Amino acid sequence: MKGYVGKILYVNLTDKTLREEPIDPKVAEKYIGGKGYALYLLYYKYLKEYMKKGISPKDINPLGPENVLIFATGPITGVAGAPSPGRYHVMALRAPLTGSIASANSGGEFGPFLKFAGYDMVVIEGASDKPVYLEIIDGHAEIKDASDLWGKNVFDTTAVLKKRVAEKGGKNISVACIGPAGENQVLFAAIMNDDHRAAGRTGVGAIMGSKKLKAIVVSGTHEIELADPEGFRELSKKLIERMRKNPVTGEGLPKYGTAVLVNIINQVGAFPYKNWQGAYNPDAEKISGETLAEKYLIRRRPCWGCQIGCGRVVSVKFGPYQILYSEGPEYESIWALGSDTGVSDLEAIIKANHLCDELGLDTISMGSTIAAAMELYEKGYIPEEDLQGIDLKFSNPAALVEAVWRTAYKSGFGKMLALGSKRLAEIYGAPDLSMSVKGLEMPAYDPRGIKGIGLEYATANRGGCHVTGYSVSAEVLGIPEKMDPLSYEGKAALVKAFQDFTSVVNSAVNCLFVTFEVNAKDYADLFNTIAGFNFTEQDIFTIGERIYNLERWMMHFYGFSAKDDTLPKRLLTEPVPEGPTKGQIEELDKMLPEYYKLRGWVDGVPTLEKLKELGIEP
Amino acid sequence: MKGYVGKILYVNLTDKTLREEPIDPKVAEKYIGGKGYALYLLYYKYLKEYMKKGISPKDINPLGPENVLIFATGPITGVAGAPSPGRYHVMALRAPLTGSIASANSGGEFGPFLKFAGYDMVVIEGASDKPVYLEIIDGHAEIKDASDLWGKNVFDTTAVLKKRVAEKGGKNISVACIGPAGENQVLFAAIMNDDHRAAGRTGVGAIMGSKKLKAIVVSGTHEIELADPEGFRELSKKLIERMRKNPVTGEGLPKYGTAVLVNIINQVGAFPYKNWQGAYNPDAEKISGETLAEKYLIRRRPCWGCQIGCGRVVSVKFGPYQILYSEGPEYESIWALGSDTGVSDLEAIIKANHLCDELGLDTISMGSTIAAAMELYEKGYIPEEDLQGIDLKFSNPAALVEAVWRTAYKSGFGKMLALGSKRLAEIYGAPDLSMSVKGLEMPAYDPRGIKGIGLEYATANRGGCHVTGYSVSAEVLGIPEKMDPLSYEGKAALVKAFQDFTSVVNSAVNCLFVTFEVNAKDYADLFNTIAGFNFTEQDIFTIGERIYNLERWMMHFYGFSAKDDTLPKRLLTEPVPEGPTKGQIEELDKMLPEYYKLRGWVDGVPTLEKLKELGIEP
Repeated sequence: MKGYVGKILYVNLTDKTLREEPIDPKVAEKYIGGKGYALYLLYYKYLKEYMKKGISPKDINPLGPENVLIFATGPITGVAGAPSPGRYHVMALRAPLTGSIASANSGGEFGPFLKFAGYDMVVIEGASDKPVYLEIIDGHAEIKDASDLWGKNVFDTTAVLKKRVAEKGGKNISVACIGPAGENQVLFAAIMNDDHRAAGRTGVGAIMGSKKLKAIVVSGTHEIELADPEGFRELSKKLIERMRKNPVTGEGLPKYGTAVLVNIINQVGAFPYKNWQGAYNPDAEKISGETLAEKYLIRRRPCWGCQIGCGRVVSVKFGPYQILYSEGPEYESIWALGSDTGVSDLEAIIKANHLCDELGLDTISMGSTIAAAMELYEKGYIPEEDLQGIDLKFSNPAALVEAVWRTAYKSGFGKMLALGSKRLAEIYGAPDLSMSVKGLEMPAYDPRGIKGIGLEYATANRGGCHVTGYSVSAEVLGIPEKMDPLSYEGKAALVKAFQDFTSVVNSAVNCLFVTFEVNAKDYADLFNTIAGFNFTEQDIFTIGERIYNLERWMMHFYGFSAKDDTLPKRLLTEPVPEGPTKGQIEELDKMLPEYYKLRGWVDGVPTLEKLKELGIEP
Repeated sequence: MKGYVGKILYVNLTDKTLREEPIDPKVAEKYIGGKGYALYLLYYKYLKEYMKKGISPKDINPLGPENVLIFATGPITGVAGAPSPGRYHVMALRAPLTGSIASANSGGEFGPFLKFAGYDMVVIEGASDKPVYLEIIDGHAEIKDASDLWGKNVFDTTAVLKKRVAEKGGKNISVACIGPAGENQVLFAAIMNDDHRAAGRTGVGAIMGSKKLKAIVVSGTHEIELADPEGFRELSKKLIERMRKNPVTGEGLPKYGTAVLVNIINQVGAFPYKNWQGAYNPDAEKISGETLAEKYLIRRRPCWGCQIGCGRVVSVKFGPYQILYSEGPEYESIWALGSDTGVSDLEAIIKANHLCDELGLDTISMGSTIAAAMELYEKGYIPEEDLQGIDLKFSNPAALVEAVWRTAYKSGFGKMLALGSKRLAEIYGAPDLSMSVKGLEMPAYDPRGIKGIGLEYATANRGGCHVTGYSVSAEVLGIPEKMDPLSYEGKAALVKAFQDFTSVVNSAVNCLFVTFEVNAKDYADLFNTIAGFNFTEQDIFTIGERIYNLERWMMHFYGFSAKDDTLPKRLLTEPVPEGPTKGQIEELDKMLPEYYKLRGWVDGVPTLEKLKELGIEP
């Protein structure tokens, strides 16, 4: 198939066997690639098969050999000239942190280079009894001993494997791996690629750890053929030109990175502060993208083939949080490690972020879990002696940095933090202090100040997530058109549309930032010129809705239903204490019934009729 | 036997068997207990037996199952009313860091409580394939599964095991264990007991790690009978009164702890600075015992039964190196982590010291290895990229603290630091920059300013060591009488006498600080009233010489000889650049020939005649 390599690699770590299957054009037409195609495989090849054998989905252990982990690219991945084509998607049958489907996305070079190495996707089954890594060079895959890599951090692991393959003459080498956090099965461990890029959320790194799969190294020179090279060239030129003129993709993101949002969202009054006790941070300026650019930025480091280039390279030259080379921190990381913990020392935040990269931790869940621990401690739920001398109070940069490495190694109180905020707050008797949905810590937008995003958090399939339905785009940035963030009107439709559209973006696989300019019609054109489909604009939304519904359908087998589509009590009952949105709460019930109606869901689950309408065989 | 429990416990971790043997009164009379008795066992029961089987001592792997590890108390250990009776000694056939005999000593409560639990000594043979711990309660020993403890730090391990035994109603509970550093076989990992007490030197913690022995927990109420209770009572009263009046044991140590030495030794011009590039630290006042007492001291924490009570409890309330409860840091730790690295931030030093305790690292070797790395980096031997962003320059407190935890976990550059300074400096092509003797990093007295201690470093059996022949006592403190530190005269005899005497103290097992007041005649009286011996003052020196010569004799089988009795080139050739001892070098050859003559050694090894004279069967 054009646009695709055409091959899926299956790796069984239990019996150390490898096999290949071709990409099925019919499945590609219905689910594209990336997240969509991976979901298709997870449901029809694994979950349904387990059920046929009498295995209850609820008995699937996310950290057991029965879990299945997929690294997936799509037709846009690795296509030079396509908008921001540097991403890949990770999916697994079940997530350690949430018990729902695991899902995470990352940039860098790994996605394109996996395709250049000869595969669209890699499916990991079973579990090894000893540490191994997977090497894929020019269509040849091998499971190799990783006992000498186990225990190594992300940077060491990456360097060693890149060198090993480079010495064999490999081109386009990239490594995705886990650090100590993944090995130790920290429930929100990330898969890291190209040193500082993270498939961060839902604990996919812990899955690799449980399978004793330390890394995947890819290398190769496979070329991707296009269905309509001439048509694509023209489209590419047009889209890149539009992205360059767009104020977000052409100026805000290149100049300040994602951190440009710190001041913007704070001024809206939706920047969560101290475990969401507030929605306005009086010290936001100190940790803003502007301050980062002024004081610490060295240069940019774009993902492979990206025209935006939001990635930051930073350095802290002096002081206790000195770190000579790092990347990021992104908006979400600054918020979670900084604002949510009350820490306004940007150097400590850069250091904590760097440790998350090096040790392989999701920054959002890490920061939010520390923030929850801080509130639990300050309110007397966590006794001082449990902390082993770390003064885990809000605004303490030393405690922040210390807590990160301890979590990765499960050292001292780190072993409690390693469970994530939901389990932590439950253990210490105050479950409402975990700011999570379905066990996944929410990101940096307070629904009390941006109403639509609350509906996205409540209904996102993977849990408290902003990137599967980024309504903030309309509610704050005015893209595609400005909506009042404090109004509930039209938000149900907005969130649904974004969720469906984003499902396609994550199946493309494409960078979400592209969508600040590139619309559904453009995507149809991209798929058509790259892979030879005949999609219309409407097809894009239908495919997205299909993907979103299949995921939701699968989740219901794990016991998820409308009861789980909610928000932490604090957001529904505690008014914002100060700032531009003072007095606001989130009234989810003003959106949720309409959302379900638009979705055609009953009790939060697609009806059989809905599935049929979307062409999903249940 | 009076004064002794009378039993030795043998634990074979390979086949999981336990057996007991009685203390042999004839061996006790010749070697006392502690270090002496342990050496006897190591030589006659193990090393000679290996040789009989045709195994070369040079082929003994310190981290192999063939190594033998001994925890040894002596007749003074645990005797209430005896001077500072809270110590025990650890010995092993071979040390990971040095390849010589492993030897380390610690205070706290573990030594006394081991006797109360029913054993004078515990001998560990073989190696387990899975993590285990040893539980000894009231004469009953058991090997237990420690898979749930593996990975835990020292404080967690100690707390869990204490709780477990307390729940069974155990009294006098103490835990000796390893932290992550021992598990990861860092070559200078310590055995930690009672949270903050360390049998620190030569890598005994790595030996436990290699045997997968996580901990020993002891508990019991065994009473120690005395040979002459009435005579002991009178002697005790007299000795305690004398210790109280002594300016060192009665005032200096209780008031400022060992850190009182910072200013004293610096003013002498013998306080090594920046990896021994200097012998005077212009910032010494900032890290002195007086500053520690003024700013961070909370209270004292003496070892079991100790009349001196030099142990410090400290707290750093604010700032980046905040730590709410810690113990120490001792003089050596302040020097190694502070002055040797050029770090003058006492809070960073307290933090680094705390991490060494928590993770199980020898502070002297840790600090000195970091100092060596700093010089190697500043002089261009270590390329910047090897450091993974840590700016390992002299005087950088952030790099110091970061380097400690990385060493324990072998994370990033920590895996190089974990090898100790000798291997590190060799790997990076500048072996002379390791300030070690026989691979053991030297402690905090510069021989260029205190000549006698250089002879002790050069000839100490375990390597660069100050506590087996603390000539500083005479050369600086004037005990038993003041000698000129810059003169070489009489130093050979002084060092020999201290080495012999200290061998008895470490076999007693007794705290070395006691000897600032308690002399050889007093020791004879102590042994006689406690254990019913009939020792004279001269017997004490003869026993000490016997122990020292047996150890040296054993070492020669590993290939040690006069060639190893030397000092780092820097001390012999680079004059002190500034301070009170400006221009001084150490002229070892002005003492060493005389020392060998007094010892009756040829090429650094006891002659057969010498062994015979001392009653040692070769």
